[in-house]
Amino acid sequence: MKHKGFTLWFTGLSGAGKSTLSERVFEKLKLVGAKVELLDGDEVRTHLSKGLGFSKEDRDANVHRLGFVCQLLSRNGVIAIVAAISPYRETRDEVRAKIENFVEIYVHCPIEVLAERDVKGLYKRALAGEIAHFTGISDPYEPPTSPEIIVDSSLETLEQSEARVWAKLKELELYS
Amino acid sequence: MKHKGFTLWFTGLSGAGKSTLSERVFEKLKLVGAKVELLDGDEVRTHLSKGLGFSKEDRDANVHRLGFVCQLLSRNGVIAIVAAISPYRETRDEVRAKIENFVEIYVHCPIEVLAERDVKGLYKRALAGEIAHFTGISDPYEPPTSPEIIVDSSLETLEQSEARVWAKLKELELYS
Repeated sequence: MKHKGFTLWFTGLSGAGKSTLSERVFEKLKLVGAKVELLDGDEVRTHLSKGLGFSKEDRDANVHRLGFVCQLLSRNGVIAIVAAISPYRETRDEVRAKIENFVEIYVHCPIEVLAERDVKGLYKRALAGEIAHFTGISDPYEPPTSPEIIVDSSLETLEQSEARVWAKLKELELYS
Repeated sequence: MKHKGFTLWFTGLSGAGKSTLSERVFEKLKLVGAKVELLDGDEVRTHLSKGLGFSKEDRDANVHRLGFVCQLLSRNGVIAIVAAISPYRETRDEVRAKIENFVEIYVHCPIEVLAERDVKGLYKRALAGEIAHFTGISDPYEPPTSPEIIVDSSLETLEQSEARVWAKLKELELYS
């Protein structure tokens, strides 16, 4: 197995499946001996962005910090995987511009489906107006206009989504 | 040239020579094709720690973030070089505990010499009581108790300090 350094950036609404899919890709890459790091948005907030909230400015700062770390890893041959809502298109594109091999995965799921699943009970509260800055309800989400990969957890199995990832990485000659 | 992933952490007072020596080591490593990143405290503050000040809490947060990035790089075979005042011993030791190959360089220079050099004019102002939280004058600096390397820019040439670095890296079998 050979790979280049690249960044795999999962963006999408809370509960859409970013963490599930990114963890699966991460575990498989680990298993075959790839140099790979998984930066999960929530987890990284405690390391890099303690004190930041959910205003646009703070979200952008968080995304830029993640991007900075991905840039350092990727250009040294490491695969950096990020799973973070990262709701603003322009901010994601600023990160993209700094990273040679940037692969954006839009993890889509219709908001009605998310509200029905509501794994963490957050959508119900957000729809009741109890959570300020909740992406997709009380805060904007700007989908990517031309992501390298789109998956939809309301239409596909996890295996199907995963297969799209491997296919694209091979097509881009980042992984073989 | 072969190397392991490791972290080379330069600590010491402002003006003691951390940046000069770390840049030199970085450039040489780059030149021979090493995978290496230089994280300069001042520069990284804009990427990772915008908004943080110079209270103990904020300084510690900055050092922990630098440490987190070094950890990610080092464990993937990259050499991470940090030049940062990082005044608190316990905080540096917390970072050390997380990184397999951690090499601490204490860049020493007596404060009288620094005040006399005063390249940026900061010591004069700090001694006049005009700068709060100025390390070594209005803020503490806790020297390492057992750093891997000690250099003293008031007693040695840059070349002599540099030679100590290469010698130690070879002794530790991190670089050959």
